[in-house]
This record gives sequence, structure tokens and C-alpha cells, in this order.
Amino acid sequence: MPLLVVGSVAIDNVETPNDRRDGLLGGSATHFSYAASFFTEVQLVGVVGKDWPAEHTKLLSDRGIDTSGLQVADGKTFRWTGRYEPNMNDRETLDIELNVFGEFNPVLSDHFRRTEYVFLANGVPNLQLKVLDQVPGCRLAVADTMELWIQTTHSDLMNLFKRIDGLIINDSEAKMLAGTENLVLAGHRVREMGPRFVVIKKGEHGAMFFSEHETYVMPAFPTEQVVDPTGAGDSFAGGMMGYLAQHDNFEPHTLKLAMAYGILVASFNVEGFGLERMRQITREQIEERMAAYKKMLRF
Amino acid sequence: MPLLVVGSVAIDNVETPNDRRDGLLGGSATHFSYAASFFTEVQLVGVVGKDWPAEHTKLLSDRGIDTSGLQVADGKTFRWTGRYEPNMNDRETLDIELNVFGEFNPVLSDHFRRTEYVFLANGVPNLQLKVLDQVPGCRLAVADTMELWIQTTHSDLMNLFKRIDGLIINDSEAKMLAGTENLVLAGHRVREMGPRFVVIKKGEHGAMFFSEHETYVMPAFPTEQVVDPTGAGDSFAGGMMGYLAQHDNFEPHTLKLAMAYGILVASFNVEGFGLERMRQITREQIEERMAAYKKMLRF
Repeated sequence: MPLLVVGSVAIDNVETPNDRRDGLLGGSATHFSYAASFFTEVQLVGVVGKDWPAEHTKLLSDRGIDTSGLQVADGKTFRWTGRYEPNMNDRETLDIELNVFGEFNPVLSDHFRRTEYVFLANGVPNLQLKVLDQVPGCRLAVADTMELWIQTTHSDLMNLFKRIDGLIINDSEAKMLAGTENLVLAGHRVREMGPRFVVIKKGEHGAMFFSEHETYVMPAFPTEQVVDPTGAGDSFAGGMMGYLAQHDNFEPHTLKLAMAYGILVASFNVEGFGLERMRQITREQIEERMAAYKKMLRF
Repeated sequence: MPLLVVGSVAIDNVETPNDRRDGLLGGSATHFSYAASFFTEVQLVGVVGKDWPAEHTKLLSDRGIDTSGLQVADGKTFRWTGRYEPNMNDRETLDIELNVFGEFNPVLSDHFRRTEYVFLANGVPNLQLKVLDQVPGCRLAVADTMELWIQTTHSDLMNLFKRIDGLIINDSEAKMLAGTENLVLAGHRVREMGPRFVVIKKGEHGAMFFSEHETYVMPAFPTEQVVDPTGAGDSFAGGMMGYLAQHDNFEPHTLKLAMAYGILVASFNVEGFGLERMRQITREQIEERMAAYKKMLRF
């Protein structure tokens, strides 16, 4: 089944303890789309400015991603500059220019409005709600959010939670939402705010899943080669949602397998700057890593 | 097979965000012994003072732990007072009195010198080496250490590493030893310092295993009920070593299963103050949790 994603498309400058890259193709919807494209047909909705290099769009469409929903608006593309701490987990935003993304108001084509699998990448909750209004036949709606929206638009976020099936957030966001430091407690408390399931991303420590009847943790795939963690969470979500859409099924067993795929795709994503490493890999390499991951968890 | 442990026996005062307990039976060798006693015969070597309550020894010997190596010396028992942060992971030592443990010089009985499975709980590396000298027929020697010894007695520690089969340390210790923030890299670097295998404990995030041919991660068992994390690492080591000694085998497959048992025993340990929760459980409950853990990691 096709999978629709609405979110940011950006140009990133990334500084790590050992290196720096400027002008990377970035943004949550970009990392999500690329990761999901290993599994299913992806429909990308976002906005860029007049400065957007055409080769970035080509790179996405060459992966089979439908970029017809990528508007080009007057102005400059969203730009983000960040620096990672030596632990490669904590990061500092050095500069952020929302530019055309600040005025983003996604209007879906009739074709996209019929999509049944939808991911609302991190964005203003009110906009995420407006997207949901446009996909009345959606069967699986999953969203991401961030601390800024938890603090500034809490009631919109609560409205969103009541309308989505799944929420994928990171550990600090879950703790903030739930008001507890215990992640197991946090996962269930957030789930009680509306979503049928909640996934908490823990970076190098993997991810946790919470539904009414299930609680589980899956570790990250151990890698020595952490080059750039930018987009890890979005590629996780892309791998997970891509797998679900491919199999047109979100039963408990499929959700668990999908989460494992998300973890593995993210483990590739961090092995290069931006999409560098993702552009080198094939679905076969993901399957090889899956075999190693399953072996690792068998005892 | 019997399992020998040499280490601290203490009286702990523990403060958590919600509660406080004084006069708890604590110490690394204590938590280790109790955890291992679910699996095999344990020989405990440590020292206490004249203030040591007889019922503490009885509690251990009632579990079948051989306490004949628990010397009673003139003076007071080692005392530790600590306070946990709201995250229940970081802690502050409020007071520490080494007392008789400061003069600890373990001399093993002829019977204990023949033990083939030995755990050197955290202590001065030079003392750990002296214990190794007394167990010439030891087939599996595993040690723990702490940041203090990494910083102050580095060359003794390197000598120790060359003589042990396994090392069980926590994530911050591994990073400090290896000089890197990447735990996968850190695990292998520490392994290259001598031990045939290295286990890195990650608290609520589980544990990692490193040998020449294997690298794997196992998540912690998710629990809402974290009452007191004191002794979690020691009970992990006790569960792991206890299982290996019980099966008299440390092949790769057994090591992995042993690590899972360590994780599960530690997950019970944190559910109560001191040994409170451990005293309530049975081997059957550990097996039930093992079934749930295996199910969680199957997909």
C-alpha cells in the first residue's frame, strides 16, 4: 500500500566531533521517505524554497518516491545547523531558519487524500490535525512530535493524540509528556492520552513498544560506526511504517517485526552523513542485518 | 559447581525520591551471593565488624550460602549511605565508612582454594590479584571494578585484566577505560586489554557482550517498579555466574543464556530495597520471567 508522509524537507549543516558537512539533504520527511522507500511506494508532502537544488528532488524520485506533493514556494528552504557532543547523542542547534517551512500549509491532492497509511512527521500539532482532516479513509495514522509542541501547544497535541493510532516519540519527550522518569510508566501514560500504541525511541539503546496488551523493548543494532545521528528517529519511523504499509497489516506480530526493521534501517542511517549511507545500501543488506539481529536475540 | 565470591559486605542506608531505608544488608558480595544462590552453591568471602547483626549471616546461610569465609574483625562493618536522583539511575554517595573493609586481606581456606568458578567483586585490584594467586585451579575467573581503581591503580588493573577470563563493568567505566563514548568500540578495546570476554552493564538499558567472535546487546526486562537500584549490577553478575557454575560450562551459548538470567535476576533486585524483593522470589518466578523475556525478543 502507498504511504503518505507530511513533514519538513530541509538543508542541513552538521558538525560532529571529527567532521563537518554542509548543504546536506535533510528534514524529517526526507529521512522518513528514503527509509520507507525500501519497503513501499512513498508519497512525500513538504515545501522547499527557490534555492532548492533540483538534484535533491531527483535523488528522491529516483528511489520511486512520489515528489508531486513537494511544493516549491517563494523564499528559502528550511535550514538547520547542529553540532553533536562527543557522545553522539546530545546535540546543540547552532542555527535554525524556518523560511518557507514556517508558512507550510499542506493541501493534499485528491490522489493523496485516498492514502490509507499516513505518517505525520514532527510539526505544529494544528497542522498535523489539518492533514488528518484531509485523509478521511486513513486506516493507520501515526505521528511524531517534539518538546516544543508539548510545552507550547499542549491542548492541540492532546486533540491530535485522540485521533491517531500510533505515536512515535523519543525518551525525553515521553518523560516530559508523562511527568515520570520511568519509561515503562511513561509509555503507558502517554498511551492513555489517546494513541492505540506508543513507541519510545531510545537512540543507541533501541526502542520500546506499548499497547494495551503488550510492553516490549528491542535493543539497537550495535554499531561502531556512528557518523551522524541526524534523521535516525525519522528513518526508524520510515522503516517501521514502510514495512507495515508493504504488508498492509498492523497486527501485533507485524508491528513487532516492523519495529525491528525500523531499528535496522536507522542503524544504517547513522553510519554516514545525511543520506550518504542510505544511498549505498540495498534491501538485501537490510535483510542480512535482520538475520544477524535475529541471531543476536536468540538464546 | 561451587562458586566463590570475594568482595564487600556492608550495611547500607538508601534514600530514594520517595522513601528511605536504614541498616540494609548490602555490599557487592552480598547481592552477588544472594542472586547466585538461586542457581548454585555459593562460597562467600568477606569481612564484617563486631556490630554485624547475626541475623544477616543467618539470612545468607539459610539460602545455602557458605558463610564460613565471612570473617568478623575488630571494628565496625563497612557502611555506605547513598541517595538516588529522580531518574533512579544516577546516585550520590552521602557517606562512606570503609571501617574493617579498609583492612580486608582475604585468606582462603584450603577448601575454597579448590573452587573453579570465582568472582572478584569490585575492590582494590591488588587484592583481587592476591585472591587469584590463591585459586590456582580456577577455570573461570571474572572480575568487576570501578572508576576509582581505573584512575588510581591503573597498572595493577592492567595486570589483573591479563589474568582474568571475564570482566563485568558498567558503561561509564568502559568509556573511561577505553577513552571512547561508543560502547561497541569501548567493549572491544577493553577486551583487547586482556579479558577473553567483557560485559558492559547499561542499567535500565540492559547489557552488552563482547568476545573475539561475538558482539551482542540484550535489553533489560521492562519494569515499572524500580524501588532501589542498589546491587543491581552485583545481582546481574551473581545470576550470570551462578548459571554458568550450575551448568559447569562457559561455551558461547551458555554465556548468552547466563547473561539473560543475570538481567532477569537484576530486574527483581531493583523491585525492593536491599534484598527485600529477592527474599520473596523463587527460581520458578525467575523462570516465568525468562519465558516472558524470551517471548518479548521473539518476532
